[in-house]
Amino acid sequence: MTGAAERQAGAVAAPFVTLTTDFGLDDPFVGLVKARILAACPAARIVDLTHAIPPYAIEAGAFWIERCSDWFPPGSFHLGIVDPGVGTSRRLLAVGTGGHVFLGPDNGLLGPVAARCGAVVRWVDAAILGRIGLSRVSATFHGRDILGPLVGLLAAGRLAFEDLGAATEAWHRPDWPDVEAGPEGVRGRVILVDRFGNCFSNIKSDALKLVEDPEPVFGGHSLPLVRTYGERPAGSLVALVNSFDVVEAACVAGSAANRLKLGPGAPVEIRRGTG
Amino acid sequence: MTGAAERQAGAVAAPFVTLTTDFGLDDPFVGLVKARILAACPAARIVDLTHAIPPYAIEAGAFWIERCSDWFPPGSFHLGIVDPGVGTSRRLLAVGTGGHVFLGPDNGLLGPVAARCGAVVRWVDAAILGRIGLSRVSATFHGRDILGPLVGLLAAGRLAFEDLGAATEAWHRPDWPDVEAGPEGVRGRVILVDRFGNCFSNIKSDALKLVEDPEPVFGGHSLPLVRTYGERPAGSLVALVNSFDVVEAACVAGSAANRLKLGPGAPVEIRRGTG
Amino acid sequence: MTGAAERQAGAVAAPFVTLTTDFGLDDPFVGLVKARILAACPAARIVDLTHAIPPYAIEAGAFWIERCSDWFPPGSFHLGIVDPGVGTSRRLLAVGTGGHVFLGPDNGLLGPVAARCGAVVRWVDAAILGRIGLSRVSATFHGRDILGPLVGLLAAGRLAFEDLGAATEAWHRPDWPDVEAGPEGVRGRVILVDRFGNCFSNIKSDALKLVEDPEPVFGGHSLPLVRTYGERPAGSLVALVNSFDVVEAACVAGSAANRLKLGPGAPVEIRRGTG
Repeated sequence: MTGAAERQAGAVAAPFVTLTTDFGLDDPFVGLVKARILAACPAARIVDLTHAIPPYAIEAGAFWIERCSDWFPPGSFHLGIVDPGVGTSRRLLAVGTGGHVFLGPDNGLLGPVAARCGAVVRWVDAAILGRIGLSRVSATFHGRDILGPLVGLLAAGRLAFEDLGAATEAWHRPDWPDVEAGPEGVRGRVILVDRFGNCFSNIKSDALKLVEDPEPVFGGHSLPLVRTYGERPAGSLVALVNSFDVVEAACVAGSAANRLKLGPGAPVEIRRGTG
Repeated sequence: MTGAAERQAGAVAAPFVTLTTDFGLDDPFVGLVKARILAACPAARIVDLTHAIPPYAIEAGAFWIERCSDWFPPGSFHLGIVDPGVGTSRRLLAVGTGGHVFLGPDNGLLGPVAARCGAVVRWVDAAILGRIGLSRVSATFHGRDILGPLVGLLAAGRLAFEDLGAATEAWHRPDWPDVEAGPEGVRGRVILVDRFGNCFSNIKSDALKLVEDPEPVFGGHSLPLVRTYGERPAGSLVALVNSFDVVEAACVAGSAANRLKLGPGAPVEIRRGTG
Repeated sequence: MTGAAERQAGAVAAPFVTLTTDFGLDDPFVGLVKARILAACPAARIVDLTHAIPPYAIEAGAFWIERCSDWFPPGSFHLGIVDPGVGTSRRLLAVGTGGHVFLGPDNGLLGPVAARCGAVVRWVDAAILGRIGLSRVSATFHGRDILGPLVGLLAAGRLAFEDLGAATEAWHRPDWPDVEAGPEGVRGRVILVDRFGNCFSNIKSDALKLVEDPEPVFGGHSLPLVRTYGERPAGSLVALVNSFDVVEAACVAGSAANRLKLGPGAPVEIRRGTG
């Protein structure tokens, strides 16, 4: 009864369902996932975050899922599919935090949201899949055959987060190294390059405050820290806290990635200034 | 009266309308087709299957339309536009089968659904276009000017499939060769390469059952037949029946197309095993 | 009272909101703009026109916004974001014309609609932003932080066009040269190349009527003027008035851009025929 009551209470008439995948848009994979979501929850408002995560680039997917979800209201659902292990014994994970529910493979993709304070993490029980009639399941397209229907049922309130499976602490921690803070500064990496050639690091604005007179260094290039692109003339290389609250390298009216020859994995430091 | 009654009976409150085109997403062509569909049928739930069919690649478009439609409920509409003959005398075709209606140029794109058992095929009568007021028609963009409005009217129940034109058996059969089955095995071709480098053949899983101890050969490379990617280590080349029920070549955590240098048209065989 | 009454009168239950940006689809930028629009106006029907405007290609964005808007009904909203000046002191502009409202940076992007007869142009008052609670504003992503919420409030009828700011005549005129008509003909430029390699000029069909026996010349290549692609065999180079009412160079079943080595900026002339 409690479960049903909670569902009722928390139900949103037209819930958001966001999608973050490595499916690309050239094949109909995304369309078929949407077909399954909408079949289960006709009122769902599906928003594509990105389908251009490079195949197997779990960290970039994890970054966007975590950074974007707060722009949606509580009661939203977030499906992440970057899933090189599809068809193996990897588990599916559900994470509930702040009124949001996240669904995806247990491979680090949901790591940043699972690590949030107060998050509840559940392994999706194989038994639930049988119980809700997901019987036409291929070995290679769980987005269409399991995850899409599942998030649709959740969004429709026909399945509750608590029903998905047992809570666990043993979910898969991300494979990538965390930011390191030391007396000389903070060390991280470039995690993605956006459409405009901006190089996003994994260093959040908070870390800047730990460093006296902070001096960002991307791939060996020391860059002036500015507040916005407009402060410098076209062609200038700068660093700034971007609109996703991480430190990025940018080139005003140009591409920092091209100018500095940087890509995912390049080292980033916030050094203590010498000035 | 019957027509109206049928329409009433079969009407779906918020029908799916799927889109499969070679329009790409770089220009606003798809958006304008959607504008026309939604103007005629505000409740339509439009799902993009793909807009990345290579220009003039009718066979790939035909494959996706046929393979994807069954994932949508009866009462759905499917618009296909890969139409090198736009502005010539090529006809428009409507196909009704299994409660679905398909619309597109009569050039083979709807061939696989038209060939289904019990399908009814109609040439869209030019008279209907005048009657329903499609008067602002360009010579080169029938997706926006004819097909979008037409599928919108169908989806809204303002036009019935039977009203579109006379049934015909003389529709354009696909120009591409069919799979050949012989005593030594089955011969087909690669028809498309997906985002992950998987090479889809036109050979369905049924054909595998015709061959004793089947051995898939893609472009001269014999590949082990597995059930899912997860059965072999990263880098392995395998063949499997994929989630669209055709035999594909795949590379675990890699691209079979790159590894085997295969693209559309490459020969595929299912040989009788020698083992 | 008048404002509220007007809003009521002109309100559309499920208004169209079109998007034209240079954001690409590889990053979640577009999805976050949609999140903000739908949060403010859950009934909005968002239609993507294009997100593939090349970064900083304001003229191509301006072309599509103006040419596409008439395919949507009065009561529609059109958001354009090609905004190299984000984070500088550039203003935001709103244009009302023919029952449509356009929103975007004041950099020429809305120039063609602002120049329409009877258009009312307003600079968005900075005070309105504070008043409507757009407080979480980054320096670099005004699509998500200002323009998305603003167009959502407009679409929802919670904010009226007249409330946005004072009308102005001093908006930024486009930086690019207009078509020149003289006794020897009309001179313009290629402004974009579409997915099929068609080269769109900025010369509208009206201009053809000014020239006796008009002979289109694209980048020095004189091309026969036809009505539709189907009039010539595959491989033929032709010019025609396209479905957006401008003169384009096309190659039947091929790419004119590749064949003629043309891109944005290439000269186009409509010469007086010598025949």
